[in-house]
Amino acid sequence: MVIILKNDPNENQLNNLLCLLEKKGISVQKTVGVSKTILGLVGDTGAIDIDALRALDIVEDVKRIQEPFRLANRKLHPDDTIIKVGNAAIGDGSLTLIAGPCAIESEEQICMIAKSVKASGAALLRGGAFKPRTSPYSFQGLQEEGIRLLIKAREVSGLPIVTEITDAEQLPLFEDVDIIQVGARNMQNYELLKRLGKIDKPILLKRGLSATYDELIMSAEYIMSGGNGKVILCERGIRTFESYTRNTLDIAAIPVLKKRTHLPVIADPSHATGKADLVAPVSAAAAAAGADGLIIEVHNDPPRALSDGAQSIRCEEFEELSRQLKTLVKCIR
Amino acid sequence: MVIILKNDPNENQLNNLLCLLEKKGISVQKTVGVSKTILGLVGDTGAIDIDALRALDIVEDVKRIQEPFRLANRKLHPDDTIIKVGNAAIGDGSLTLIAGPCAIESEEQICMIAKSVKASGAALLRGGAFKPRTSPYSFQGLQEEGIRLLIKAREVSGLPIVTEITDAEQLPLFEDVDIIQVGARNMQNYELLKRLGKIDKPILLKRGLSATYDELIMSAEYIMSGGNGKVILCERGIRTFESYTRNTLDIAAIPVLKKRTHLPVIADPSHATGKADLVAPVSAAAAAAGADGLIIEVHNDPPRALSDGAQSIRCEEFEELSRQLKTLVKCIR
Amino acid sequence: MVIILKNDPNENQLNNLLCLLEKKGISVQKTVGVSKTILGLVGDTGAIDIDALRALDIVEDVKRIQEPFRLANRKLHPDDTIIKVGNAAIGDGSLTLIAGPCAIESEEQICMIAKSVKASGAALLRGGAFKPRTSPYSFQGLQEEGIRLLIKAREVSGLPIVTEITDAEQLPLFEDVDIIQVGARNMQNYELLKRLGKIDKPILLKRGLSATYDELIMSAEYIMSGGNGKVILCERGIRTFESYTRNTLDIAAIPVLKKRTHLPVIADPSHATGKADLVAPVSAAAAAAGADGLIIEVHNDPPRALSDGAQSIRCEEFEELSRQLKTLVKCIR
Amino acid sequence: MVIILKNDPNENQLNNLLCLLEKKGISVQKTVGVSKTILGLVGDTGAIDIDALRALDIVEDVKRIQEPFRLANRKLHPDDTIIKVGNAAIGDGSLTLIAGPCAIESEEQICMIAKSVKASGAALLRGGAFKPRTSPYSFQGLQEEGIRLLIKAREVSGLPIVTEITDAEQLPLFEDVDIIQVGARNMQNYELLKRLGKIDKPILLKRGLSATYDELIMSAEYIMSGGNGKVILCERGIRTFESYTRNTLDIAAIPVLKKRTHLPVIADPSHATGKADLVAPVSAAAAAAGADGLIIEVHNDPPRALSDGAQSIRCEEFEELSRQLKTLVKCIR
Repeated sequence: MVIILKNDPNENQLNNLLCLLEKKGISVQKTVGVSKTILGLVGDTGAIDIDALRALDIVEDVKRIQEPFRLANRKLHPDDTIIKVGNAAIGDGSLTLIAGPCAIESEEQICMIAKSVKASGAALLRGGAFKPRTSPYSFQGLQEEGIRLLIKAREVSGLPIVTEITDAEQLPLFEDVDIIQVGARNMQNYELLKRLGKIDKPILLKRGLSATYDELIMSAEYIMSGGNGKVILCERGIRTFESYTRNTLDIAAIPVLKKRTHLPVIADPSHATGKADLVAPVSAAAAAAGADGLIIEVHNDPPRALSDGAQSIRCEEFEELSRQLKTLVKCIR
Repeated sequence: MVIILKNDPNENQLNNLLCLLEKKGISVQKTVGVSKTILGLVGDTGAIDIDALRALDIVEDVKRIQEPFRLANRKLHPDDTIIKVGNAAIGDGSLTLIAGPCAIESEEQICMIAKSVKASGAALLRGGAFKPRTSPYSFQGLQEEGIRLLIKAREVSGLPIVTEITDAEQLPLFEDVDIIQVGARNMQNYELLKRLGKIDKPILLKRGLSATYDELIMSAEYIMSGGNGKVILCERGIRTFESYTRNTLDIAAIPVLKKRTHLPVIADPSHATGKADLVAPVSAAAAAAGADGLIIEVHNDPPRALSDGAQSIRCEEFEELSRQLKTLVKCIR
Repeated sequence: MVIILKNDPNENQLNNLLCLLEKKGISVQKTVGVSKTILGLVGDTGAIDIDALRALDIVEDVKRIQEPFRLANRKLHPDDTIIKVGNAAIGDGSLTLIAGPCAIESEEQICMIAKSVKASGAALLRGGAFKPRTSPYSFQGLQEEGIRLLIKAREVSGLPIVTEITDAEQLPLFEDVDIIQVGARNMQNYELLKRLGKIDKPILLKRGLSATYDELIMSAEYIMSGGNGKVILCERGIRTFESYTRNTLDIAAIPVLKKRTHLPVIADPSHATGKADLVAPVSAAAAAAGADGLIIEVHNDPPRALSDGAQSIRCEEFEELSRQLKTLVKCIR
Repeated sequence: MVIILKNDPNENQLNNLLCLLEKKGISVQKTVGVSKTILGLVGDTGAIDIDALRALDIVEDVKRIQEPFRLANRKLHPDDTIIKVGNAAIGDGSLTLIAGPCAIESEEQICMIAKSVKASGAALLRGGAFKPRTSPYSFQGLQEEGIRLLIKAREVSGLPIVTEITDAEQLPLFEDVDIIQVGARNMQNYELLKRLGKIDKPILLKRGLSATYDELIMSAEYIMSGGNGKVILCERGIRTFESYTRNTLDIAAIPVLKKRTHLPVIADPSHATGKADLVAPVSAAAAAAGADGLIIEVHNDPPRALSDGAQSIRCEEFEELSRQLKTLVKCIR
């Protein structure tokens, strides 16, 4: 940590600061420049409140040198985390496909799609039971019944299941779910993250609409610091000024997160683009950039989808895409 | 609602769509243009899923004409909502000042600040007990004990109290709180909003970091549709590319939200700027733009603040600011 | 400047770096931390290429401590720059109103508006002759003829004139213009800025749609380093995800730019919001935040405006607004 | 085009509007809804000023149905534009690699890199002679001498050359350049675009930092409407809140621009990420998403680069990347 002092700092206040730092076991090296004096801090600066330092009269700015995350940090844990669910191993170098409808609508629908995407190469089934919708007047998902139907679909297809939680109170209903998803809007719902840190189940954590890489990793750190190290990061598009696509998929997030953390990183081309015809090229891009998996919305009959229909691809389109991705991965990995 | 059809739409599919709309009681007027055909929909289009329409093969785009919110809508409820708490009336044309520390640290601290800001003209006391922090390793607030201290400060100062909730499970602890705050990170924590719709207490709802006006209003609508009409909207800065300030206060949000809804609108210059020296000019700007109130972080001794110290102003600075704002408001309202 | 080294830096390369810095007359202080070593650089670091340093194998990151601008820097030039044009003095503590139509349409139009806004309290007349339009098929302004009409309007009204340049080749036509405006799209047209640095005429420099404070100030520095110190900065809204307003006026930019530079700072509420009904509240906000002036689009008959009609206010509305702003400024300055 | 009227529109004003539209040869169909009346316009609405309509008292909003661009529009010109320069054919389904240093530094440097990237598979040589730098105190490029050296490098390597223009006055110096690049900061320098529309040379047009797809295409339309149809679009990253990377490469831009226009689309992974170690994965992603080419910064000795060193890769790294991309393209196209 580096503290940049204001010009002509009050001597008393400077001494107080130096004492304070010394008491915390931090040693300080002072560099007097032409127009600025800086203090280099050596020791466990993780416990220092950067904002409290900034608030001091004599301090102009404080810059952190070390990354604020530990458990997720690749530098401290060089080996890839591999998450095994059913036959799938997310993070082992392969490309894991997670597919299914945005919202679970009926037993017939979810089972049909499950069997279809299984046949096409998906390793996990996704489907929304609790749907966080912008409007209170929109369909909110089949909820408990939705999870029941999803479990049914797992039985008929053999695919492990992924579904989104929107409140810690729902946790008992997720007992039999294989991977619990935390959506973009809940990425900084810290109470929920703390609760998920106490269970032993993989968590698929989606990046918030305007979350930085650091914030996403710190949210993973919330889960991990509770004891649950099985976190999968998901780039699902960020909010920018461009409104032609629903969000802007930040393709560099994939190699950056892979480099800075040891966690698996997947991408969600469906929510990132909001347009069915962009799912295939953006999926290929994410795979080429090194993604460990893709989570793709697939519907048997898009026009009747109850939610997010415009971004779902048909079962036949998923089959075709899955084949293309297999070719791509075989060729470059 | 207007549906723009693709060129040469399949006749069968078009008829199916027209039938479907008719069944929903919606009448349709067709306009055949040179290169596009559009359908104008007349009736209760609120129940139509815009994404499902977009997903149809024959549809190029769908544009909503009506606003998606009802209970918060100024057009349907022209009179200002005024929220009375203690001696304060938020939304009655006055400028209500809400002041206090970012985090509650001790009885001495919160009581001292409470008496000071009361004397300077604040109408409500704020103070964080449950602190949503980016890092799991940062101070998370005094929690239950913090609320107890806040209530104590109300006793000694007579100021009603505002504090943030971060999970519905904490609700019993908020029984004796006057206004419950929902932070930016929880603006779309819909389960929490639904629960807050069931209680009879004012809710101070902060705009999410990347939430549009419509999304903020829809989150208010979640609370209101549950039966609780006492919602205060708060502009607290949005996330942009500019990193010199912590966030970018969207000053136009104030007149826009006042015009489109009947709810009180306040601003948070402390979180919006993240810099103590910007609190005064930005407060004046918000007041001039028509804000019903301001929520300002005030600390007795900023350098020792445990959280967000850099953006808190001192009690003396708040006194001076309060005086300036009083002059400003008297002169322009 | 602070250089953060990678762990275990190659000794040879480190020595090379230290030699190189020494040759440039820069002395270095080394701080060895637990996990990082940092180098504090003392001397004239302005000439060091930060990117070249970052590219070194042994360097993890480089952080600049000093601000990159000199001539515009308030720390080096504490006194306010006041720009005098006709009877107006921009930056002297008053609020200068610049008003006029988006585009000059006819002699009758511009002269009528000029007289009207003069009577209402405007100190300068604005009007677009060269219009940078997104579409090549849109009206591009009356160009040379427009400037002739603007000069005519100055004669009849006595108001000095401000108009936008879009290419250095147009400079001869601007000989008789009082203030030359550089629009947001040309804020980083450095060749144009260099040319404007060679003339002796005030330049109204608008912030680019996605320009940071530093970038705006550096563009002013381009003009100033050429010898022309008469630069007026203008906040005109930045591009964000919010699309209800045309842009998002960054209200904090006003006090920030006033604090970091000694240049006058004005705001453009018309382009910032894109909506006539938001011009008055946002103007009041900018004035309250400390703006030295406002540039406002005024039209005699908005519905027939050839360009940007939706954001122009009527002459009567400007009269009313001018009166309100006068009251506001008298009261708070 | 669809006009949404305000409630209870003034009859006189409505008739005036209908007359006006009729005179322009536009027929109107009226749809009276429960709460809104909308007008559907049929005819050549390209000439209607949408802002002038919005400014009418009786109009609430206007929505454009048709795309505002014609010459670049894929719907009107379904065949791919292929641009041939030397042995390269950009847009023919292959992946064209354009490589070279950020700035031209010396004859030795540029010739050495030219020969190296040629051997590695590059089809064109890039190199900056006129450098648009944020600071007036930074190295501005070798300018005229730089172009001379670039031409020399073409002689020794046989590679056609690409270099950036920053002002129309420089055009005579570009007589012997193969492709003229317009940088992100000049994407809306319309005077420059108009001049480039009058010459017969391919233009590589980079997307502005905060330009929408429509704005980028409209800038291409400026060049094309002047008579020069040889435009190559380039996605080079947009500005977002994420500051870990220099910009955010918008991967979806590639398939979107390919679909909406018939122009070749390339990507610039170097400027998009600003980090050498992200160039390879982001290049692969762009290729997988369908890019027609990549423009990559390559340096013989990155640490001594005079400009943008941190994002340049070494010649050996380019060789390796080129090999990987060849494998990727062979496998998926």
